[in-house]
Amino acid sequence: MSAERLIYLALGGAGEIGMNCYVYGYGREEEERLIVVDLGVAFPDMDSSPGVDLIFADIAWLEERRERIEAVFITHAHEDHVGAVGHLWGRLRVPVYARAFTGAIARRKMEDQGHLADEVHIVQPWPEQVNIGPFKVGFAPISHSIPESSGLVIDTPAGRIVHTGDFKRDTDPVVGEPFDPEMWREIAKPGVKALVSDSTNVFSKVAGRSEIVVGPEIEKLVAGASGMVVATTFASNIARLKTLAEAGQAAGRSVVLLGRAMRRMVTEAIETGVLKDFPKTLPPEDAAQIPRENLMLLVTGSQGERRAASAQLARGKYLGLEMKEGDMFLFSSKTIPGNEKGVARIINAFSEMGVDVVDDSSGLYHVSGHANRPDLKAMHELTKPQFLIPMHGEHRHLREHVKLGAETGLTGVLAPNGTMVDLSGNAPRVAGYVDTGRTYLDGSVQVGAMDGIVRDRIRMALNGHLLITVIIDEEDEPLGDPWCEVMGLPELGRSKAPLADVIEEELSQFLGRADDDLLVDDDKLSEALRRLARNTANGEIGKKPETTVVISRLTT
Amino acid sequence: MSAERLIYLALGGAGEIGMNCYVYGYGREEEERLIVVDLGVAFPDMDSSPGVDLIFADIAWLEERRERIEAVFITHAHEDHVGAVGHLWGRLRVPVYARAFTGAIARRKMEDQGHLADEVHIVQPWPEQVNIGPFKVGFAPISHSIPESSGLVIDTPAGRIVHTGDFKRDTDPVVGEPFDPEMWREIAKPGVKALVSDSTNVFSKVAGRSEIVVGPEIEKLVAGASGMVVATTFASNIARLKTLAEAGQAAGRSVVLLGRAMRRMVTEAIETGVLKDFPKTLPPEDAAQIPRENLMLLVTGSQGERRAASAQLARGKYLGLEMKEGDMFLFSSKTIPGNEKGVARIINAFSEMGVDVVDDSSGLYHVSGHANRPDLKAMHELTKPQFLIPMHGEHRHLREHVKLGAETGLTGVLAPNGTMVDLSGNAPRVAGYVDTGRTYLDGSVQVGAMDGIVRDRIRMALNGHLLITVIIDEEDEPLGDPWCEVMGLPELGRSKAPLADVIEEELSQFLGRADDDLLVDDDKLSEALRRLARNTANGEIGKKPETTVVISRLTT
Repeated sequence: MSAERLIYLALGGAGEIGMNCYVYGYGREEEERLIVVDLGVAFPDMDSSPGVDLIFADIAWLEERRERIEAVFITHAHEDHVGAVGHLWGRLRVPVYARAFTGAIARRKMEDQGHLADEVHIVQPWPEQVNIGPFKVGFAPISHSIPESSGLVIDTPAGRIVHTGDFKRDTDPVVGEPFDPEMWREIAKPGVKALVSDSTNVFSKVAGRSEIVVGPEIEKLVAGASGMVVATTFASNIARLKTLAEAGQAAGRSVVLLGRAMRRMVTEAIETGVLKDFPKTLPPEDAAQIPRENLMLLVTGSQGERRAASAQLARGKYLGLEMKEGDMFLFSSKTIPGNEKGVARIINAFSEMGVDVVDDSSGLYHVSGHANRPDLKAMHELTKPQFLIPMHGEHRHLREHVKLGAETGLTGVLAPNGTMVDLSGNAPRVAGYVDTGRTYLDGSVQVGAMDGIVRDRIRMALNGHLLITVIIDEEDEPLGDPWCEVMGLPELGRSKAPLADVIEEELSQFLGRADDDLLVDDDKLSEALRRLARNTANGEIGKKPETTVVISRLTT
Repeated sequence: MSAERLIYLALGGAGEIGMNCYVYGYGREEEERLIVVDLGVAFPDMDSSPGVDLIFADIAWLEERRERIEAVFITHAHEDHVGAVGHLWGRLRVPVYARAFTGAIARRKMEDQGHLADEVHIVQPWPEQVNIGPFKVGFAPISHSIPESSGLVIDTPAGRIVHTGDFKRDTDPVVGEPFDPEMWREIAKPGVKALVSDSTNVFSKVAGRSEIVVGPEIEKLVAGASGMVVATTFASNIARLKTLAEAGQAAGRSVVLLGRAMRRMVTEAIETGVLKDFPKTLPPEDAAQIPRENLMLLVTGSQGERRAASAQLARGKYLGLEMKEGDMFLFSSKTIPGNEKGVARIINAFSEMGVDVVDDSSGLYHVSGHANRPDLKAMHELTKPQFLIPMHGEHRHLREHVKLGAETGLTGVLAPNGTMVDLSGNAPRVAGYVDTGRTYLDGSVQVGAMDGIVRDRIRMALNGHLLITVIIDEEDEPLGDPWCEVMGLPELGRSKAPLADVIEEELSQFLGRADDDLLVDDDKLSEALRRLARNTANGEIGKKPETTVVISRLTT
């Protein structure tokens, strides 16, 4: 009979920045009671996931153990932590716990997918704890770039775990609770078995700066502007929105929120009480009446998203508003790697309009929401854990964070997605490996990233698509000529005749010569036609297209 | 009768960083004799140009005026300046001029495309000049990140133009000619009509650093390494390759060049005499015999290119060599915007192997090849031009460079691709607009970026592809059932039946009900089937696929 044990397992978030999903378990092997921390999304891109809507961690492992799951806990309301809760809940059907603001966002996501909002239970912050199975879980306020972010204090019979969630060490965060070293010291007093910690900024060598520092700079910038001022940041960065809006107000400007996500976030933040004294805003439809030098727009689209307000303004009029020479556009945000081209596209469009664009390159108008290297070290020191488990990072971040811990003698555990770690003993032990991966939300369907569907789309994008139809009559003879349609391929090739015609001609000659054995065998005939068509295309246009052959047989 | 005039026109490079192609003309309106400066490429990406091989400026305007073109001048051998010469030469058929090293590269590109190498004429540097039509063109040595880069001194009856090409102000460039302020002062003495200048780093506020500064840092780094050392930089950065190789040699390591492009560049540089005293290298096949701590590999793939040596090493063995825990990988390079994800993929793969990755974030192991803001200003001061025309930049760079010039009273000309500027008078004047654009090399065919071919591929990547075939018999009645094939779409939808089956069933019922008018009209029938199939798919999978309908009619 095996002893009870405490396990840690990342299904998402330890190997990428995004789609966070962590599992803790306590009990006998293969009988552990489980809790899940966060159900987040990652975002698709054209390179690897064209046409995909959202990316989730593959939760097959959890689904198979559904009856052993006690609950899901959501640390904060960023999409990479809460974004999948509505989409995946139906496969788990367990209670969800979150604080008020996070819970409001989670409830909306549940309803959007046809689930009941009250599956999401609202909990009070630490020192309150949720008692569930062998676990007691408390939401300890921690500063980040969205209100009510919480580190989780997870008490188990094998000891206390501190799961930081996303955090920075900000004692003056403008909106929401400051980082409270005393509270963390208190939490650590009984001893911390493992610190499971954000690793995002482990390569940033200088201590992070407080949200409070950007206020005066933004105020100065807006005060000096002469035309319309438009600023963007993440819709969920409520503190920054407040700072921006106050800078507008101080400069005597009417503040307008543009973009659904932004209006929604501010509304939720006010309703749940995390946001107070937000300057009065003007509805977008009233803004056109105001002289542009008296306007300050706060808009969505800090990452260059094509459908967001910033991109719409870059393309021309949006809700009756238009950027002009002498206006200013402020990116009070960092460009996430991979989004540089989209952001540059917008900046260049504004440049063509004569708009002055200010970005974060000066360091004055944005601060990160994540703990930098010295801040991570400070958190190690505050919590004095037995083990350090880096999470929320690509492999390089996790590895570097382990190294950072080692500098002060901490036992680090490099546990990327799928590595189950047994934390029960005096040393962490790899207890096994679990198959992990990505699930794509494609339209309304969840498909596996390795199912080949998206791979086929990528191939069509790279190579184009060739369709061949052939009709075989009742005597197993070709009826008429083969037909060829091209999609995403040059019309004319080397021989200056239409590509489709050249291929049809080749296939027609081939069919004329084909012997009976081939003509009666769909698989062989398809393969022969495909190969000939691809080779012909290659000779004509230097490309072998994806090729689909449809053989229709007339039957008597 | 119109007077003679001097015109400037960018067809590529003024509005993007890449595909440089500039035109100067002198003569009566529409009779100007023309010269072309650079024929470069830009590189495709999945977002906007999946499956495309290379991107060129659209040279239709030049092609129509072919008989008026005197020559093409190539400033230096970077792909964005010389890469299209072989592909586009056949459409222009005019002499090409370049210095020895650049010319060697250009000649290879000509031969690769079936043209004669000796269409490329090798010229000596300034003060020699090529006399051609109304122009005298000299290649004035200027420092950059590849040997023999030249600014062009273009003398015309309307005055002297200085076209910088790509440059930095480096008086100690390790390989090649230093930046020579005295020479530029001399060149400026007769007066400079227009300075047409690189704008890439106009947003970099601190003066650029010399190539010489990275040597000691790299030497220190390599000396301290214990395992194998692998370093990457642009294959054409001959000075950096020399610095890296010397650091390896100083640490007692055998130097190995990995990657075809790199070996080729070093060979050309040695053969044309621009590279001297390069450390002896070891053939890759002999490297496996050497203990890893005595090896230094210089590899291609600084931008994360999937087929380059760095990516191959990140995936496993390459030419018998393999990275291991304790080895070091150095990016002696900057990641070009858009390539971050590819580079991160490699870094994470190395992280999983336990390899220590060093990048340029410290600023110690890489310097840029372009002039920073203060350097641009210094060039303005050296050449004291009448007008400043920023080039080699996105719109934001050009605009900012005009502003920089204005700080010292320079008359700037913001002339993005297609803006023809008349420089003859005392003030620059926009003389017209020319249609510009991009030409894609797709396989072996040149297609227009707006031809719709790549757009169709992008649509298939986003939406998948549905193929429907219907056979209509001699009496205009459907023969058998419609057939549906899906490509890049989920197999099962909402009704849990195969998507293709559900669509076939819908189409079959529709055809059963269809009246004769519809069945005899291919266009209407196609459209009706397409709409029904897309709507059915949308109900099943929440996506409307690209749809191709093939109707085959049996004729008597």
